Order: sequence, then C-alpha cells, then structure tokens
Amino acid sequence: MITPAEIRAAHARIAPHIRRTPVFDVESPVSRGRPVSLKLEQLQHSGSFKARGAFHNLLTRGAPAVGCATASGGNHGAAVAFAARRLGVPARVFVPEISSSAKIARIKAYGAAAVVGGAAYVEAQQRCDAYVRDKGALKVHSYDAPETIAGAGTVALEWEEDLARLGLPALDSVLVAVGGGGLIAGVAAWFGGRVKVVGVEPERSCALRAALAAGAPVDVTVDSIAADSLGAKRVGDIPFEIARRLVAEVALVPDVAIVEAQRFLWSRFSIIAEPGGAAAFAALASGAYRPERGERVGVLVCGANVDLTAFASCVTARA
Amino acid sequence: MITPAEIRAAHARIAPHIRRTPVFDVESPVSRGRPVSLKLEQLQHSGSFKARGAFHNLLTRGAPAVGCATASGGNHGAAVAFAARRLGVPARVFVPEISSSAKIARIKAYGAAAVVGGAAYVEAQQRCDAYVRDKGALKVHSYDAPETIAGAGTVALEWEEDLARLGLPALDSVLVAVGGGGLIAGVAAWFGGRVKVVGVEPERSCALRAALAAGAPVDVTVDSIAADSLGAKRVGDIPFEIARRLVAEVALVPDVAIVEAQRFLWSRFSIIAEPGGAAAFAALASGAYRPERGERVGVLVCGANVDLTAFASCVTARA
Repeated sequence: MITPAEIRAAHARIAPHIRRTPVFDVESPVSRGRPVSLKLEQLQHSGSFKARGAFHNLLTRGAPAVGCATASGGNHGAAVAFAARRLGVPARVFVPEISSSAKIARIKAYGAAAVVGGAAYVEAQQRCDAYVRDKGALKVHSYDAPETIAGAGTVALEWEEDLARLGLPALDSVLVAVGGGGLIAGVAAWFGGRVKVVGVEPERSCALRAALAAGAPVDVTVDSIAADSLGAKRVGDIPFEIARRLVAEVALVPDVAIVEAQRFLWSRFSIIAEPGGAAAFAALASGAYRPERGERVGVLVCGANVDLTAFASCVTARA
Repeated sequence: MITPAEIRAAHARIAPHIRRTPVFDVESPVSRGRPVSLKLEQLQHSGSFKARGAFHNLLTRGAPAVGCATASGGNHGAAVAFAARRLGVPARVFVPEISSSAKIARIKAYGAAAVVGGAAYVEAQQRCDAYVRDKGALKVHSYDAPETIAGAGTVALEWEEDLARLGLPALDSVLVAVGGGGLIAGVAAWFGGRVKVVGVEPERSCALRAALAAGAPVDVTVDSIAADSLGAKRVGDIPFEIARRLVAEVALVPDVAIVEAQRFLWSRFSIIAEPGGAAAFAALASGAYRPERGERVGVLVCGANVDLTAFASCVTARA
C-alpha cells in the first residue's frame, strides 16, 4: 500500500520540477450548493497531472544509459517525454496507432522517440515490455506502479495544504476521474478515509465500477469521448487494492454530460479541460453525484490536452 | 486620489459577489529568471477583471429604478451586464458598431439591453451620456471613475495577501496591461510605491505612454490586435493623475509579441488569454521589459474573452 508519508516524500522529491497548481473556489453548479474547490491541475507541465508520476519514477528509480520507456498514446506519454527531457534521460514512447497525430506530435516535440505500432494500447504495451526486456530500459507504467501512484497523490497533498494556508474550508469530498486508477489511488491514499473520495467514470468506460462489482479487475468495453485519457480496459491491480478500501463510490457520467461540462467550464470559468479533465466536474453538474446539503466538494480538473479547433467547434456562445 | 483603505473597503463590499482568482507561480520565460507570479484574473466572472469595478459601482452608488448605463463594446459592457443581472438592476449597454457580434451576443446573454450605434466608442459614449441625462440612469464609466478604479485595485490586494498566505515570495514588480488606465491606476494605488508598477501597452495603442510624455492625457491613434480591450484613444484623467505618481515605466509591445504570448500561455500553461490579457506577459517574454537579476515579477492575466475558433487558428501545435 501507499502511505501518506510516502506521498509526502514523493512531493519533496518532485516539488522542484513540477508546478504547484492553484486551488480555486467557485460557485457550485448545484442549486444552493456550497462553493466548490477546483484544483487546477490541467495547468501542470505537459498539460495533465501525469507529470507528477513521471518525475517521481525517474527521480527515485534511476534510469540506465539507455533511458526509460513507456506505452501511451496520450497524457502519460507526453509527461514521460517531458520529464525525461528535463532530467536528461532518453525516452522511448510506444504509441498505439489509434492515437491522434496531435498527441504523437507532442510526444516528439518533447524530444522523445515515438514508436507507433499496434492497433490498441495493449499491443503498444507488449512492444514496450519487449523493449524493456531486451535493452534494460526503465519501464514507467502509467498507473499500475507505486511510484506513479505516489506521484499522483501529491496533488491531494497540495490541495489540502493550500486550502488550509488560504483559510478556505477543508474538503468533505473529492471527485476524481478514473482511467486505469493511478490518480484516484494516489488521492485516496493521501486522504486515507479523512475525505470521501468519489471516482467518476464515463458510462461506457467504467473499469473501476466493474472491478468493484466483480471483486477484482476485469476487462470492460471502452467507447467514450474521454477514451484517450480514461479509456483503460481494466484498472491496475495496485489501484484496485487501494480503491476497494478507500474509494467511497463511483459515479458514472454519459458522454453528453462530459461535453456539457467542458462547455460550462469554458463559458463560466474560462477553463479549458479535455474530456477526461472535465469528467469529475460533469458528475457534479449533471447530478450523477449528489452532495449532501452543506457538503464541501472538491473537483479535480486533471487535464487540458485538447485539439483547440475541435474544442472550439464543440463549444458555442459563452453565456 | 484612491487610497489603500478605500480599496480594502471596496474589496469587503464586492467579495461576496466576485471570485477570488488564483495566484500561480510558474517558471520565468526569461533565462535564469526567478519564478513569475501569475494572477489568473481571466478566470473572473464575465471573463475579465472588469467585474470588480462593475460590482463596486453598483453596490456603492445605488442605481435608480431605471437602472444603470454604460458605453462599451467589450469586457466592461459584459461585466456591467453580468453584475447588474446578479444584483437585479436593469442595464443598458451602448455598443459601437465596430464591436464583434460575439461580444454583443454576450452582453445580451447576460440580460442587458444592448444598443448598437455609432461608428466608434466616443459616439457610443455620447449616446450613453444623453441617455443618462434624459432618464437619470446610473452611469458606470469603464475606467475614469473612482469606484471603477478602486474596484480594479482589489485584484492587487488579493494578490499580495494570497502570496503571503501561501508562503510565496512577495513581488518586486508587477506588469499590468493598460487601456484607459483604470486597472493600472487601481493596482498602483494599492501598492502605493511599495512594488514597482509597470504599464504595458501595444506599440500602436499607447495612450498612457503618450500622456506621460505630454504631461497630460492626449489622443493617440489606435491600431492593434488588442484594440477591443486596450484600445482607448486617451487615458482617463483620474488614472493619469495616479499613474504619473505611481507607475514606474511603460513598456510597449508589438502585436506580434502579443500573439506569441497568447500561444506561449496556451502551449505551456494551458491558459487562454485574449490579446489584452496576454499583453503584460508579452512584455516579459519578448524582452520589452527586462527585470533585474533576482527580481520577483508578477504578471496580471486580465482577460480571456476570445473567439475560440479564431484563437485556435492562431495558435499551432503545443510544445
């Protein structure tokens, strides 16, 4: 298991390399709701929280001369590429063919070798694993590794500390989007039951909900607008063990609610969030998660990596 | 003159109605520069700092039954419309014909009567003045009024307080975009010489620079990408009197540097800023303002009201 002390140690290591992203109190989208605390982690290096775990892996495990490797066509791949460049480590990112050209370009722009191949994520992962076996590169898993989870958990540490420093009310609950489960596992490990941790998944990409129902990680079908960040077919084993003890519930949101949340975040708050980054807010705004009266809710905005042109066509007039 | 005590009183009045926008430390765009403190005021209600002055006018001066009126085709008009709706006050916004349809739609979306007419701002202002004379409506000036300036100054109060609360270093200097001068006058009045206040204007819309050179407000030619927010032909008399005592210098930025700053803010920080909102950052990133070694610089990001489709076509791949 991951302890709060381990997360605090992770934060001390990565703090010189990451941004301490802001907390921001806004009016609740729920009628008569208390102000909601947003943690603006979409402002992190590389555009998502993934930079935390990437730096933590590279700083604690040490990479050989051949460098590090990971399988990801999305935010994790970009984050590993970013962190590796900053730390002077070669990086190789195995990217499934379904990844968008924009995301592949971004991985390359950060200086990593992007190896495109395999129809789906699992095949890219197999190629990555073979490379790691052959070359001895450091494998950086996107969610099912203790260093990745402890790194992600630092976002919750900052959140709690900054609310206290600013004199803002502490959280009763926190909404966190779930893909493979690394982020919510880190957040839940930090709070350790002191705050109600609620997972949010797209209705058609709900690996954690399915795992909790089955009593173990199981494969699910993935078909969601948020698939490029939340589209894990199966939650990780380590995240699952943490989540089944420390995640209070999982709310499911339809894709239409995610798009509506993206529109709302932009038109009301001037915040750009990718579908996976807006999913947690969508649970609150759509009623998929209903707080108690007086409940102080935190919403983690965890990623901003959109194609702006597509985003613009999706959001309409500001109101 | 506007005193810090007046700004503190203004903040107490408007605080229940506005958002306390975050401060955010980021790496400097200047080689070996100290971390820069951004104040993310583009996340304010109505998408710019103008909501502060709008609320302060309506809350302190009191509107008659006929309501309030202002002349603006941009952020101030939207802010007055927003604040008026929140406070249950009728609002009439006189909009010059040059204003974008998107901004006019926004003013209407906030429930104000938008009266389009007059080729330029000055004619819209004349129509507004005539309406105020005839009907007795409360006139809310966009920059040349004490309540507007004191309201704008509250952004500096929050900035200084939040840096102290978070244990972050205090500012040595602060970069603030200038249109009619209301924002920088409020900021300078708050700091009162304790922090170096630097104005930033587009090269071809530099009413404050011209006024300081002439010893009094003078008309300038306006031709800049930021004209819809910084395009005042002449600074206000009250802002000028404050600025000549308390603004250390004015940096000028070409339009190309403003666009580059917009691109940089998006690609590095996932922040959307309109041209006027990115101008202050542009002064730092382009070298138009060069901090001393070790200088702790603050940059006010003051507005986000872009047409996203046009913005997307302007920024390219993220790096």
